[in-house]
Amino acid sequence: MTPASPNRDRPLAALLVPDLLELLEEAPEAIASQTEELHPADLADICEAFPEAQLAPFLAALPRDRAADVLEYLDEEVRVTLLEELTAREAASLVGAMTPDDRADILEELDEDVADEVLAELTPEARRETEQLLEYDPYSAGGLMTTEFVSVAESTTVEAALASVRAMARAGRKEAMNTVYTVDDGGRLRGVLSLRELLAAPEGARLSDVAWTDIVTVLPTAAQEEVAQLTSNYDLVSIPVVDDSRRLIGVVTVDDVIDVIQEEQTEDVQKLGGMEAIEEPYLTAGFFTVLGKRAGWLSILFVGEMFTASAIQRFEGELAKAIVLTLFIPLIIASGGNSGSQATSLIIRAMALGEVTLRDWWRVASREIPSGLTLGALLGAIGFVRIVAWQWMHDAGWRIGGLALGTDYGTYHVRLALTIWIALIGVVTFGSTVGSMLPFLLRRFGFDPASASAPLVATLVDVTGLVIYFSAAALILGGALL
Amino acid sequence: MTPASPNRDRPLAALLVPDLLELLEEAPEAIASQTEELHPADLADICEAFPEAQLAPFLAALPRDRAADVLEYLDEEVRVTLLEELTAREAASLVGAMTPDDRADILEELDEDVADEVLAELTPEARRETEQLLEYDPYSAGGLMTTEFVSVAESTTVEAALASVRAMARAGRKEAMNTVYTVDDGGRLRGVLSLRELLAAPEGARLSDVAWTDIVTVLPTAAQEEVAQLTSNYDLVSIPVVDDSRRLIGVVTVDDVIDVIQEEQTEDVQKLGGMEAIEEPYLTAGFFTVLGKRAGWLSILFVGEMFTASAIQRFEGELAKAIVLTLFIPLIIASGGNSGSQATSLIIRAMALGEVTLRDWWRVASREIPSGLTLGALLGAIGFVRIVAWQWMHDAGWRIGGLALGTDYGTYHVRLALTIWIALIGVVTFGSTVGSMLPFLLRRFGFDPASASAPLVATLVDVTGLVIYFSAAALILGGALL
Repeated sequence: MTPASPNRDRPLAALLVPDLLELLEEAPEAIASQTEELHPADLADICEAFPEAQLAPFLAALPRDRAADVLEYLDEEVRVTLLEELTAREAASLVGAMTPDDRADILEELDEDVADEVLAELTPEARRETEQLLEYDPYSAGGLMTTEFVSVAESTTVEAALASVRAMARAGRKEAMNTVYTVDDGGRLRGVLSLRELLAAPEGARLSDVAWTDIVTVLPTAAQEEVAQLTSNYDLVSIPVVDDSRRLIGVVTVDDVIDVIQEEQTEDVQKLGGMEAIEEPYLTAGFFTVLGKRAGWLSILFVGEMFTASAIQRFEGELAKAIVLTLFIPLIIASGGNSGSQATSLIIRAMALGEVTLRDWWRVASREIPSGLTLGALLGAIGFVRIVAWQWMHDAGWRIGGLALGTDYGTYHVRLALTIWIALIGVVTFGSTVGSMLPFLLRRFGFDPASASAPLVATLVDVTGLVIYFSAAALILGGALL
Repeated sequence: MTPASPNRDRPLAALLVPDLLELLEEAPEAIASQTEELHPADLADICEAFPEAQLAPFLAALPRDRAADVLEYLDEEVRVTLLEELTAREAASLVGAMTPDDRADILEELDEDVADEVLAELTPEARRETEQLLEYDPYSAGGLMTTEFVSVAESTTVEAALASVRAMARAGRKEAMNTVYTVDDGGRLRGVLSLRELLAAPEGARLSDVAWTDIVTVLPTAAQEEVAQLTSNYDLVSIPVVDDSRRLIGVVTVDDVIDVIQEEQTEDVQKLGGMEAIEEPYLTAGFFTVLGKRAGWLSILFVGEMFTASAIQRFEGELAKAIVLTLFIPLIIASGGNSGSQATSLIIRAMALGEVTLRDWWRVASREIPSGLTLGALLGAIGFVRIVAWQWMHDAGWRIGGLALGTDYGTYHVRLALTIWIALIGVVTFGSTVGSMLPFLLRRFGFDPASASAPLVATLVDVTGLVIYFSAAALILGGALL
C-alpha cells in the first residue's frame, strides 16, 4: 500500500517493476543511476512486487548504503526471508550500513542463530554498538534510540562545532543530525541546540553560551509511551537518552516516535474491540494468528456471559407469570453496555494522552454517576413513551391497511413502562460507572487500561443489569402482574 | 498534566508558581532572565496554575517572542480567555510574533468579531499571510501548513544557500528550517535537501546538483489524515504543500503531524465507543458538552434496539411453551456483538493505517466469514458442553453442602444444547460479517468508518441474532418442545 504522492497517476510499483526487472537482466550496472532519485520507501515498495528470487540480485546492484536504506523500509516478512537467504557475510555488509538502532531492530526480527552469525561478521565496533542496543527492551527508550548523534564539548566555539557537524555529515552519518548536544568533560549532557540555532549563533560564541540547558531527557528504561508523550508535548524532533549519571548514551528520533504512536494506537483500538493486539497488518497476518487473538477473549467473554443464564433462571418464576418482561431484556442490558462502552472509551483515551491519571478516579466518578443518571432518565423516558404510545394505538385500534399498529402490553402497562424507566436509570448509571472505573482498576493492578474493552464492560454490566431489571419489576409490578 | 522529565522530583509548576508570583509583584523586570532556560511548554503549564488576573501581566513581563511561544502551548480555554481580555492591539502584538500557522490556528479559536479586530491590528504582511491561511479548511494540509520555510533558487551555490539560511535563522524565523527547498524561476518546487545534507554538500556545487528531486508533496486541499500517512510512511520531518502548478506555498512540520495523529486517534476511539468525538480533554470539557455527545448516539442505539422487543414478540408463542429459551437470549446476542466488535475494530484500524482500502472488501469478507464460522463453532461447543454437563450434574444429584449443582433443562436438553450451538455459529458469523463490512459501507457513502462503533454493530446484530436463534429453535425443537 503506497499512498502515492498526488502528482502520480498510478502506483510507482506497477510502473517500474517490469522496467527494472528487464534492466536487472540486461544492464544491472545501470540500476543504481536509474533509481537514484527514488525515495527508499518507494523503492522498497517496488522491491516487494519483485519475484522473490530477483530481490537479492537487485539489492546487490545498488550501492551498499542505498540497499541498506531500502532494506529498512521493506515489510518485515520480506526482509526476514531475504536476510536468511543471504550468507551471513552479505547480510552483515547490508545491515552494517544501517544506523545502529535500525540494525538492532532488524537483528531482533531474525532467528537468534542467524542473528548471531550476522553479528559475528560485523566490524568489532558495530558489533559492540549493536550488542549494547540489543540488551535494551525493544519497547523502551533504550530499544528505540540510535547511538549515532552529534555531541560536542560545551567549550567548543560555534565555528568549530559547525565544522565538526560538517565533517560528520560528509562521513555519511545520518541520524539525529538536526540537533547538536553539548557535554561536559565527563560526557554528561549539558545543553542542546538545533542545527538552525547553531547556524544562527554569533560567530566566536562558545556553545555553552548559546545552547539550551533545560533539556527534556529520558532514561534508557523509560517506556516507549513516555517517550512518545514527551515528544508530543514538547514538539521535539529528537529526545536524548541519558544514563543515571546523566551521560548521553543515545537519541530517539521523531520518525521512530511516530511509529510508536501508531503501534500503540493499533494496540489500543484492537484491545478496545475485545481482542488481543495483532502485530502485523490485518491482511498479511496469518488467518490463524488473528483467529487465535480473537478466540481467547471471545471465549472468556462467553463464559462470563453465561452468568446471564443463571441470573434469568433465578427469575424464571416471575418470567413465567409475566412473559412480557422478556421483551425488554435485550433493550435494557444493551443500554447499560452502550453507556459503559462510551465511558470506557472516554477514559482509556484520556489516560493514553495523560489527561487523566490514577489520582483522578474520584473526579471521573463524580462526573460519570450524574451522567449515567441523566442518560438513563432520558432513555427511560423514551422507553416509557414508547410503551404507553403503542398501548394507546392498540387500544384505539389504529391500523394501516390490514396491519394493526400498537401493541397490547396488558392491564398493567403503565406499571410496566415505569419498570422500564426505573430499570434504565439503574442500568445506565451502573454501566457508566463500571465503564469509567474499570480502566482505573486495571491500571491500578498493572494491566493495560485498554483491556477494558466495550465487550468486557458489556459482559460485566449484563448480569447486574438483569438483576436490576427484575428487582425493579418485583418492586413496581409486585402484587399486580407478579 | 506535565509529564515531568525523569530528573525532576516534583512538578515544575508546583515548584515555581509562588516564586514567580512574588517576583511579578516585586521585580517583574527579572522574570525574563529567571525563566529563560525553561521550555515554553513548561512555562505554559506554570502559567495555567496562576490566578487568572496575573496571567496577562506575567506574559507582558516576558520578551514578546517568548510570550508568544508560551501562548502557543497554553490550554485552548486559558488562551481564549486571555486573548479576549487583552486589547486588540496587545493581542495582535502577541500573535504577530507567532509562526503564521499557529497564528491562524489561534485566531480560529476566537470569536469571529474578536479575531477580526486582532487581524486588523496586524502588520499588512502578517494580515495577508494569516487571512490566506484562514481560508483553508483547518483539517487540510493548507490548514496545517506554515508559510515560513526556506526556499532558494536551484541555481544557487551551496555556500550562498547556507549564507541565506544563516541570515534567515538570525532574523529569528523559526519553522521548517531543517529542510531547504529549491525552486525554479517560476517558484515551482524542484528539489529538497536537509540542512545536514546542505552542510555535507561539496563546496562550489549548485543546489540542483545535490538536492533530491523525488519529492513527496501534497496539495493544500489534502486531508490531514493523508498528510499524516505520508509523513509516517516516508519518515519525513516536514512535507511541502504545492499548488496545482507545483508552486511551493507552504510546509507542514512533523510536530503538527503528531498532533493530527493524536487527535484523529482520540476521535476514532470515542466514535468506536459509540459517541460523537469531543474536542477538549475529558476533565476540562463541560459536563453538558460530553453529555450531549453521548446522548445522541445512545438514543439512536436505544431506538434501534427497540426492534429486539418486536423480534421477541413475534416468538412469544414459542417462548411461552419453552421459557428455557429465554435463558440464553443475552448469551447469544452478546456473542454476536462481541465478534462484531472485534471485526469492526480490526478493520477500522487497518483503514486508518491505509492497510485496507475500499477495494479490499472482498478479501476482508473472505477472511471474516470463515473466522466467524470457526469462532461460532468454538463458542457453540462451549455452550453445548455446559448445558449437557449441567444437566448431567443435575441428573446425578451432585451437591456441595446444601447447594444443588447442575440445572434441569428438561427432557429435550440435548436438542436445546444443539440449538444453542447452531444459533451461535449463525450469530457469530453474522456478527463478524456485519462488523467487518459496516466500515466499508460507511466509507463508501462518505461517512467516517470509525462510526461503525462496537455498540452500533451490536445493535444491528441483536435483532437478527434473535431471529437466527428462534429459527434454529423452531428447526431443532419443533415437534418436541415447540
